[in-house]
Amino acid sequence: MVELLGLVAFGELLAFERMARDAALAPDLRRRAMLGEMAAVEVDGYQRVAARLAEHGVDPQAAMVPYVRPVEEYHDATEPKDWLEALTKVYVGDGIADDFLAEVAALLDPADGDLVRQVLHDGRYAAFAEAELRAAIEADPKVANRLSMWARRLVGETLSHAQRVAAERASLTELIVAGAGRDDGVQKLFQRLTTAHSARMNALDLNN
Amino acid sequence: MVELLGLVAFGELLAFERMARDAALAPDLRRRAMLGEMAAVEVDGYQRVAARLAEHGVDPQAAMVPYVRPVEEYHDATEPKDWLEALTKVYVGDGIADDFLAEVAALLDPADGDLVRQVLHDGRYAAFAEAELRAAIEADPKVANRLSMWARRLVGETLSHAQRVAAERASLTELIVAGAGRDDGVQKLFQRLTTAHSARMNALDLNN
Repeated sequence: MVELLGLVAFGELLAFERMARDAALAPDLRRRAMLGEMAAVEVDGYQRVAARLAEHGVDPQAAMVPYVRPVEEYHDATEPKDWLEALTKVYVGDGIADDFLAEVAALLDPADGDLVRQVLHDGRYAAFAEAELRAAIEADPKVANRLSMWARRLVGETLSHAQRVAAERASLTELIVAGAGRDDGVQKLFQRLTTAHSARMNALDLNN
Repeated sequence: MVELLGLVAFGELLAFERMARDAALAPDLRRRAMLGEMAAVEVDGYQRVAARLAEHGVDPQAAMVPYVRPVEEYHDATEPKDWLEALTKVYVGDGIADDFLAEVAALLDPADGDLVRQVLHDGRYAAFAEAELRAAIEADPKVANRLSMWARRLVGETLSHAQRVAAERASLTELIVAGAGRDDGVQKLFQRLTTAHSARMNALDLNN
């Protein structure tokens, strides 16, 4: 449990820092502020999870340290070059992260599970990213190709960094494997995540 | 009034972005998260001020646009190179900004004035920065010299960018001059800001 909350806490903290940085890519102040607001929500999530760790008698910093390198490397490998790449990263990354967290929330005791469900991203931010991306693709259909490839790269980096975390953090992996069901449980969990991701890509016609 | 709220709104938005960036300079995750929390508070302030502008029938983006260049140039000219410079910037910059805003809040109608007072920085963040700086100076007194020069540079950049804004935005300057009192009112206002800044520097023995 500590393993998972440490990952969630640092994931939120770094998502905040990178979204704040990406805000400068926005084409105008309204959009720039919107990404700032989305980033600030991550800090709120971080604070809740860190407070819960402290309630459990765990130093939040100690719980987060193991995840610093893989999460930073994920973000370094997926640094958006422009506003649409930044929004795609939010849309794809937050979508997968939320689906994954909703799955593991079910494996935690009710109080911790509720907390994890509370820090899932507000749907209005996904709706904002989706609407922005849809408008950009309609204005210039060539954009879809580029973002489709970018989205695949995001998923690839997410998987490879998640695998590294899974390999290094046996107790975290154990929690997920035990919860998902030992036989094909993990495989099914990945199928559910993949299906949901595909649905998001289809919604924007990014699955060609 | 719109001039002032536009400046406050964009000031908060950019303070957020730069503090989020500076968080990566922190020596550990606890301090990194603390700067993240401080940054997120700026977004909250931005949202309140932007909402007030909208209530007044003003597009927040239009009200902020004139301040993008001077505020960005101020931050570009004062980009901290390490954690202690980042904290000094928070301590010095937020201090001056809050003193200035408290002065102009008195010039606005009561509702807008209350709003500006609400977005002043929470004292616990200044206390955090002050305690961090004091500990660093006690551990290595040579640090005081370096930070003292850095603080002077911050004040110099703040003044020169503020003068540029004042020269370019006649109606903002008019509001302040009219409120402060036409004769030596502005001079006295600057004296009050300078005195308060000196007191903060003295608290850390940074006035040598």
